[in-house]
Amino acid sequence: MTQFQPRDADYERRVRDSFARQALMRTIGAELARIEPGRVEIALPFRADLTQQHGYLHAGVTSAIADSAGGYAGYSLFPAGSSVLTVEFKINLVAPAAGERFIALGEVVKPGRTLTICRLEVSALKGGQSTLIAVGQQTLICLEGTPDR
Amino acid sequence: MTQFQPRDADYERRVRDSFARQALMRTIGAELARIEPGRVEIALPFRADLTQQHGYLHAGVTSAIADSAGGYAGYSLFPAGSSVLTVEFKINLVAPAAGERFIALGEVVKPGRTLTICRLEVSALKGGQSTLIAVGQQTLICLEGTPDR
Amino acid sequence: MTQFQPRDADYERRVRDSFARQALMRTIGAELARIEPGRVEIALPFRADLTQQHGYLHAGVTSAIADSAGGYAGYSLFPAGSSVLTVEFKINLVAPAAGERFIALGEVVKPGRTLTICRLEVSALKGGQSTLIAVGQQTLICLEGTPDR
Amino acid sequence: MTQFQPRDADYERRVRDSFARQALMRTIGAELARIEPGRVEIALPFRADLTQQHGYLHAGVTSAIADSAGGYAGYSLFPAGSSVLTVEFKINLVAPAAGERFIALGEVVKPGRTLTICRLEVSALKGGQSTLIAVGQQTLICLEGTPDR
Repeated sequence: MTQFQPRDADYERRVRDSFARQALMRTIGAELARIEPGRVEIALPFRADLTQQHGYLHAGVTSAIADSAGGYAGYSLFPAGSSVLTVEFKINLVAPAAGERFIALGEVVKPGRTLTICRLEVSALKGGQSTLIAVGQQTLICLEGTPDR
Repeated sequence: MTQFQPRDADYERRVRDSFARQALMRTIGAELARIEPGRVEIALPFRADLTQQHGYLHAGVTSAIADSAGGYAGYSLFPAGSSVLTVEFKINLVAPAAGERFIALGEVVKPGRTLTICRLEVSALKGGQSTLIAVGQQTLICLEGTPDR
Repeated sequence: MTQFQPRDADYERRVRDSFARQALMRTIGAELARIEPGRVEIALPFRADLTQQHGYLHAGVTSAIADSAGGYAGYSLFPAGSSVLTVEFKINLVAPAAGERFIALGEVVKPGRTLTICRLEVSALKGGQSTLIAVGQQTLICLEGTPDR
Repeated sequence: MTQFQPRDADYERRVRDSFARQALMRTIGAELARIEPGRVEIALPFRADLTQQHGYLHAGVTSAIADSAGGYAGYSLFPAGSSVLTVEFKINLVAPAAGERFIALGEVVKPGRTLTICRLEVSALKGGQSTLIAVGQQTLICLEGTPDR
């Protein structure tokens, strides 16, 4: 795993503050589980009201936590006073999203001044077992001089 | 626009029944707005509890309605007794998701026995104006002989 | 189809000059078939030395002409003195690339000052029949003040 | 790195035979550099006739070797008597494709009976230095009972 040097020593607080303003994360019950420079994990307990027609987690929810994990992985490397937007992402749903708890991992693959590329992974935890349920790739844009709030 | 012939005359009821079982759509307040063979629209009124850090609709919610619209566009062309899974999708968030109401359109580009490809579009309505906020492309798989419930 | 106003009246010559510098297009025998603001077509006659293991056009060649068509569709709307880079693209190969001639269409879906999003389509012509063989979506970046050569 | 068990002990010969039938690989001068179960590398020396307008390797060529590397990574795990098709891929061009030699790596992330998902990476070698120039994600389909030739 590449080691990244954050340009803003205060990156963790900046990520926590921004995440706390993502109303959707609260609505679905997602939490920041881990913050490192260029690497963020979001945890989501299963809830029956977030499912698709077969009772699995809806791909939109899987995508939501993957997108936020990647977004904050990138944001952790951005300079102070900037904000982050998702340009695009692609996600493969590789197994049914069945589990008690889901972990979305976002990891910077290529940081950049304007664009940053992340790898996304979502796993389902069930009876102590972890299963990869989604993998993705994401492009972020850094808006310098545009504070996050 | 290509015209598609549904293989199951009862496609509309099948789509409505499946959509009604997507608990997430109810949770976020999304509704089926239009069902044609190979073309489905989902409408979602804005809600502050579905937003990201700048107060816009979260990309995960935009993706959720886009994914479901595409999934049901494909499903409308599937044979009776089958079900649909999203293999993968890619989505570009092309403008801030600001509006009073959002319309996700899923449209089959290439139907197939096993795999079906859809185009996805999400627009935001604001003061009578419609703005394209996301475009995507999606791959679906048809599970024959696996009823949707 | 949206109508786009080019910011540089000389867009066509700019596209032709840049395309002429893409050595790969010459190597594979591709030609610019049509240039309109935000919409470019590239034509490629079939050649047996461009195939994959089943004798169809290799997905990399399909991607090459799709990527260039989209890139120049975007570039046609860029200001004078700028250049274009592909940030990323996604492509579905929806039918075997069998034909005598292939047409790649790139079309701007959302122009922007920094990022431009295109839709890509590749068709195969065979005995007067056109078949869609690939659809894609592409993100371009405009480098202002960086002339193309 | 996950370890995969090939279902066909003769996977290496099968991959080599199929690659040898990809006329495009010969045309551009690409070679199989490494074959392991679920992991394939393709090497390509730089050639000026494969470039885009700035003299870098064209994204279509980068995509071609990435697509073939992923395709054969998947194919190495397929059963005897099957063949492989690319359903779709997505690729980010993360740095200018400048170098003396390029290495495309395809790696299976999730094998499956019908669909297999791969991660793609392309690096440029220049003066002993390796630089990541592209990352991608790919979906393959296994056609059982359809021999590759």
